[in-house]
Amino acid sequence: MHFIINKEVLLNSLLIASKALPSNTNVVVNRSLVCIKIQAKNNTLTLIANSSEIAILTVVKDDSLLIKEENTIVAPGKSLIEMIRKIDDILVELLLLENQLLIKSHNLEYKLNLFNVEDYPEVEFLEVGNKIIFNASVIKNSSKEVGFSAATIDKRPLYQGINFKYNNGILVNSATDGFRLSTKNTPLNLAVASLDFTIPSKSIDELARLLDYYNEDIEVFVDRNSVLFKFQNTMFRTRLLEGVFPDIAKIIPTNFNFELYFLREDILRAIDRVSITSTKDNGSRLNQVDFKVRLDKVVELSAINEAGSSKQEVIPSREIVAKQIEMLLNLKYLSDALRSLAGQEIVVCFVDVRRPIVIKDVNNDDLLHIIIPLTN
Amino acid sequence: MHFIINKEVLLNSLLIASKALPSNTNVVVNRSLVCIKIQAKNNTLTLIANSSEIAILTVVKDDSLLIKEENTIVAPGKSLIEMIRKIDDILVELLLLENQLLIKSHNLEYKLNLFNVEDYPEVEFLEVGNKIIFNASVIKNSSKEVGFSAATIDKRPLYQGINFKYNNGILVNSATDGFRLSTKNTPLNLAVASLDFTIPSKSIDELARLLDYYNEDIEVFVDRNSVLFKFQNTMFRTRLLEGVFPDIAKIIPTNFNFELYFLREDILRAIDRVSITSTKDNGSRLNQVDFKVRLDKVVELSAINEAGSSKQEVIPSREIVAKQIEMLLNLKYLSDALRSLAGQEIVVCFVDVRRPIVIKDVNNDDLLHIIIPLTN
Repeated sequence: MHFIINKEVLLNSLLIASKALPSNTNVVVNRSLVCIKIQAKNNTLTLIANSSEIAILTVVKDDSLLIKEENTIVAPGKSLIEMIRKIDDILVELLLLENQLLIKSHNLEYKLNLFNVEDYPEVEFLEVGNKIIFNASVIKNSSKEVGFSAATIDKRPLYQGINFKYNNGILVNSATDGFRLSTKNTPLNLAVASLDFTIPSKSIDELARLLDYYNEDIEVFVDRNSVLFKFQNTMFRTRLLEGVFPDIAKIIPTNFNFELYFLREDILRAIDRVSITSTKDNGSRLNQVDFKVRLDKVVELSAINEAGSSKQEVIPSREIVAKQIEMLLNLKYLSDALRSLAGQEIVVCFVDVRRPIVIKDVNNDDLLHIIIPLTN
Repeated sequence: MHFIINKEVLLNSLLIASKALPSNTNVVVNRSLVCIKIQAKNNTLTLIANSSEIAILTVVKDDSLLIKEENTIVAPGKSLIEMIRKIDDILVELLLLENQLLIKSHNLEYKLNLFNVEDYPEVEFLEVGNKIIFNASVIKNSSKEVGFSAATIDKRPLYQGINFKYNNGILVNSATDGFRLSTKNTPLNLAVASLDFTIPSKSIDELARLLDYYNEDIEVFVDRNSVLFKFQNTMFRTRLLEGVFPDIAKIIPTNFNFELYFLREDILRAIDRVSITSTKDNGSRLNQVDFKVRLDKVVELSAINEAGSSKQEVIPSREIVAKQIEMLLNLKYLSDALRSLAGQEIVVCFVDVRRPIVIKDVNNDDLLHIIIPLTN
């Protein structure tokens, strides 16, 4: 293999592929998965990377690309990217020596030890299953607005995902860790009657990063165990999570007895201030804050830990018609929910102090955050 | 105790005192050393903190300070600073409750659990020993230009310090870890004939941070086992390291056989590029780079590790009159030395490939860095 290419073009494509490299290389069984497979053929480079969750294929066609000899190599992704980054010429030359890749610019030369091409597992990017098309914003929004409510690694697998449910022209994205739930409705016209699948939220986060500067439509192929996203020169495949996602329509409270309105910045600042005395241990009382509506219609947040205690007053943005109430909430859940909203004013809706609360922008019911109170 | 004070004034003084708090609280025997002792008396606050190495006393006098009740408390430094930081009113009120400190602003209240005043060890700040006066820049320069050559924790204690040696109107600051040495000459008129003491380089770094915006003279009291620095409202005491610092005049080579000149940026960039394939393990071959002057009068840096290898050419800034040479050097030592120099052009002076090299700015012999080559 031997080719010359614009350094920035190569680096950008390597960075796209690298999103599929395993983040924790200690758990990798097949050592060659730390590599990016590079095929130079027909005046095109094809880069492939994959971990157990995600596989990415990206194609490089560029006026600067000059392939002098076709071939395929398997190169350690991180080291290759590190080396290409250090080049500060416009063009870089890559040449396969015996079992090393020679990377050359005018006064700098790297040799990178390669892996055997035969050891790299076969990866397929098949356009099969239900084909749908939606805008990249659907992925970016579900990552930003819903994904934080998914559980981290130690919970049951389905709770680590973002559910995509489509019915009657509405796509519902939801995530829950069993203690909180976030859900977003997006009106969409898809070429299918209904869909229901759950993608690992980490995969959605990586995909959202790739789509950072991309605001067009993407093609999505939903198969039984995996889903393939296709945009620009890139294909992104992730496995799906098995199981039936909870019916969230049944979980969301609908008849509320009172509502509290806040300027979002006010309540976020109050949370930040009491957070320094909230419980930091990993027990069930983690991040506990006492949320109280006083008789004088001022809201009071307070928290206590082994270092001391805090008490912060917040004036609601509209007059309170509720009676005195008091409940215990997870500070971090509150903060995550409030940060994901976009409006200046938000509303917290209560059934009673033992039932989940709903947090949303005042003028928008599409994005809802539900938090279960901590019990005394 | 009860006082009101400008929040920023209090925060800044707490941050000064906090420089003496132990960085690793796990090794603290007396738990109250994580605290700052605060005395409110005679319309003045006195803040004291100390670890085994450093003790700081800083006095707060400010028009905003209103002491309503005098007393002394011992409060956890980190938590207190965290709480004061969160206040966004101009004034803050501090009031001693039974065993808690109440910190109050208009809609926010913290209570901080306190330690017993009796458990806090006595700390003395005595102005004894040889008194000298020099500019704050002496400390800042020795931290920045010399201190990095001191050894880290696992070496013999004296090598963890910066030596101050004064004779015949010249202050010599030196530090060495046994493999490299940095030394700086500063002409000074001190009120003593000679001095020789060694300060832990970590203490100098903390002191240099405190002096960041201070460019005036400081008073220095050199006692047998400790040294006291006095500036503005602050006293900074650090222990001295025991033992006789090596006579560096004997170590510095003086008769060189050839010299190589570089633009500092050129050689630094070259080092950065080969660093990604230098040895990263902790053995004696750590950060090894091959430094070669080729027959064609180009300098070549190369490095090899398990990932691959690199080769970078550097064109010297002046014509080479030397013969072909090759030696092994520690990349990080080279890079540290070059970064601490200020000039655009630097010179590397050689006796022969087995003897220490000297690196310095072309037009300045006051600051020298000596590096021992690695042996094959």
